[in-house]
Amino acid sequence: MLEALKELVCRQNKALAENGLVLWTSGNVSARDKETNYVVIKPSGVLFSELTPESMVVVDLDGNKIEGKMNASVDTKSHLYVYRHRSDVNGIVHTHSPYATSFAVSGIPLEIYTTTSAAVFGCRVPVSDFVTIGEEEIGKQIVEKIGDGEVILIRNHGVFTIGTNSEKALKNAVVLEETAQAVHYAMCRGNITPLSDETVKRGYEIYHRTYGQGIKK
Amino acid sequence: MLEALKELVCRQNKALAENGLVLWTSGNVSARDKETNYVVIKPSGVLFSELTPESMVVVDLDGNKIEGKMNASVDTKSHLYVYRHRSDVNGIVHTHSPYATSFAVSGIPLEIYTTTSAAVFGCRVPVSDFVTIGEEEIGKQIVEKIGDGEVILIRNHGVFTIGTNSEKALKNAVVLEETAQAVHYAMCRGNITPLSDETVKRGYEIYHRTYGQGIKK
Amino acid sequence: MLEALKELVCRQNKALAENGLVLWTSGNVSARDKETNYVVIKPSGVLFSELTPESMVVVDLDGNKIEGKMNASVDTKSHLYVYRHRSDVNGIVHTHSPYATSFAVSGIPLEIYTTTSAAVFGCRVPVSDFVTIGEEEIGKQIVEKIGDGEVILIRNHGVFTIGTNSEKALKNAVVLEETAQAVHYAMCRGNITPLSDETVKRGYEIYHRTYGQGIKK
Amino acid sequence: MLEALKELVCRQNKALAENGLVLWTSGNVSARDKETNYVVIKPSGVLFSELTPESMVVVDLDGNKIEGKMNASVDTKSHLYVYRHRSDVNGIVHTHSPYATSFAVSGIPLEIYTTTSAAVFGCRVPVSDFVTIGEEEIGKQIVEKIGDGEVILIRNHGVFTIGTNSEKALKNAVVLEETAQAVHYAMCRGNITPLSDETVKRGYEIYHRTYGQGIKK
Repeated sequence: MLEALKELVCRQNKALAENGLVLWTSGNVSARDKETNYVVIKPSGVLFSELTPESMVVVDLDGNKIEGKMNASVDTKSHLYVYRHRSDVNGIVHTHSPYATSFAVSGIPLEIYTTTSAAVFGCRVPVSDFVTIGEEEIGKQIVEKIGDGEVILIRNHGVFTIGTNSEKALKNAVVLEETAQAVHYAMCRGNITPLSDETVKRGYEIYHRTYGQGIKK
Repeated sequence: MLEALKELVCRQNKALAENGLVLWTSGNVSARDKETNYVVIKPSGVLFSELTPESMVVVDLDGNKIEGKMNASVDTKSHLYVYRHRSDVNGIVHTHSPYATSFAVSGIPLEIYTTTSAAVFGCRVPVSDFVTIGEEEIGKQIVEKIGDGEVILIRNHGVFTIGTNSEKALKNAVVLEETAQAVHYAMCRGNITPLSDETVKRGYEIYHRTYGQGIKK
Repeated sequence: MLEALKELVCRQNKALAENGLVLWTSGNVSARDKETNYVVIKPSGVLFSELTPESMVVVDLDGNKIEGKMNASVDTKSHLYVYRHRSDVNGIVHTHSPYATSFAVSGIPLEIYTTTSAAVFGCRVPVSDFVTIGEEEIGKQIVEKIGDGEVILIRNHGVFTIGTNSEKALKNAVVLEETAQAVHYAMCRGNITPLSDETVKRGYEIYHRTYGQGIKK
Repeated sequence: MLEALKELVCRQNKALAENGLVLWTSGNVSARDKETNYVVIKPSGVLFSELTPESMVVVDLDGNKIEGKMNASVDTKSHLYVYRHRSDVNGIVHTHSPYATSFAVSGIPLEIYTTTSAAVFGCRVPVSDFVTIGEEEIGKQIVEKIGDGEVILIRNHGVFTIGTNSEKALKNAVVLEETAQAVHYAMCRGNITPLSDETVKRGYEIYHRTYGQGIKK
């Protein structure tokens, strides 16, 4: 079942590794099938290089396994909590990408210093309270703290990004690490000034009107 | 049309990713065909790994699409502004390469601290005023602020490099990131002193007289 | 003899390089065969890309070569010291992974700042006294200083990790570098607070109860 | 002529790129043939990925081209100066590897902080005076300032390493970048103390007596 979505989610999980956002088995991508409300997610503790579409796990919104031979990610309950509380979200990405995670360790929101993060995110990146791995605590933090944006730092842990589909969530995760890296370097050399809220908002609006192949599809 | 140039520009766009200068879909290479004055540029929002010569977009200097099924890069108007105002420029590269971008975030010109950047650039790297993505604002900044050099930091955004051909613009982008990286590390550990203008100028002259296979071609 | 284990240890040595934990010929993985008490280890001074299962060296716990045409790693005596004194350990990994090694150069224990390192390690990472390469001095430090954990920084040298099997030791080495990287970046920007011992312990317990495919196997 | 050496030098030049020590066309490996005293070196301004054994340039110790269709590296005269003045040197490597180069930009010798650099180098890494690229000025600095070691930082430029053969010079270049990276990170977080000269010397002696497959060959 959901063969196309399992194929897509498998490929996007591998893309996490190919883009330097994850190591070993940590991190995951999930996607919701809009028709059935089933969620496809990475199995727990499997190397990204060994993932296949068949190894993806399908669960319903209550966490019942619908298909799959393996255990789903330990983060599954948090993904499902978000899907249940945010009907607009159909894709979720989790990484420990190193530069973004360092801001999660510092425990301070990541302001917007680059036109790219302004354009893609539209607002600063909040940081959650500290919560333990497992169960749905991370999911609750995401729903409560992510605000109008699609990206959140999980305190002392890593990153969660959401999107109307998993491709957008994945792009958010890539752009977050890119901007965190450049901002980190600049901060190491001295004080820097974030873009104003108005500038960020304007950049976001222009970008979402003009970027990509949207008009042609 | 312009099959060889589309092949070249496609390959050079992929080289951005292979040299660690770009991630996901951000960044682009364009080249001007000297005969027709048409410009070949990357399509907007397409992964570098998925680019093909056929997916390149051909536009004239006023931005009219001459060939191509996709939308051209959102930076196209800025590229064209530069081509219209600098008849000596036939190649332009744009990246968010992380070390160089961090200096664009800091908003200070990058002095010349290495013999390589002296040899290749010949002068310090200026930083533009802040401008929003889209339209031709970035192009105006490039023409106004790039001076005698071929490399400029775009404030809170990234890097643009130019060249008499796109190969040279690409080399400028690689060397900028290389030098920004080493300089960043040194700055993190303490104060460093840039090379004098005279030393930079002499390095540039010797290099452009002796480097490469120029005499043999 | 021990064909499957030589194959495994060869692959895990290559995984060190593939995960960015080693360069050139430095670093090694060994594993103990529980039945014979023989240890399979990397040959000395061979590039990771050139390793084959046949090039692996088999030694007994006293260091007598049982099989193999090449000299065993210069760290062999230290590996054997650990195997002799820790009957629960069947896999050992040694790397100079750069971020973790930088903490070994600083000579301070690495506190736990991330939920991942809490979950995987369960306690702070100690640092050994300074000892010279060669003989079994490093092994003595590991046994004496590693405490309840499976990871130790070797003063001014690098990293050793242990595990009930070599796969677990390898995972420990990957997670150590991942957490050292993020913690380093955060430390560069300001003071950070480690997780409390109680939080670390709780994270460790939950993780070891729920992560991976354990229950299914 | 010298087919085996051209093959070797070509492969080692590519190894510079594969080990992250060089970008684009900068950096080079050369080797001296002991019988003829001819030197094989990288051609100038050619991408590492495009090098072939046939593209290598053969010159005599006075810089006369013996074989090759392309111009030799701009650094050739400096390589030859070293070969003429150091009959024990048969391999030379030049890189702009970023961490080591950052110390060349800082202009301070790199002390020995790790057992690996102690073992491989045996003494601190000196830094040359500032000299311009081209001619044999760099070669003069190497001969004058490298002392008992095989590694030198070229002020505001990069790295040169030498060896009794090019494989050893290449290993020196890899180990230098590895140690510079870890040392840089540690220095960013606070003061660190180098190993004593006696400790460095002892590490060097043990290592050169025990490491690798020497005894077996």
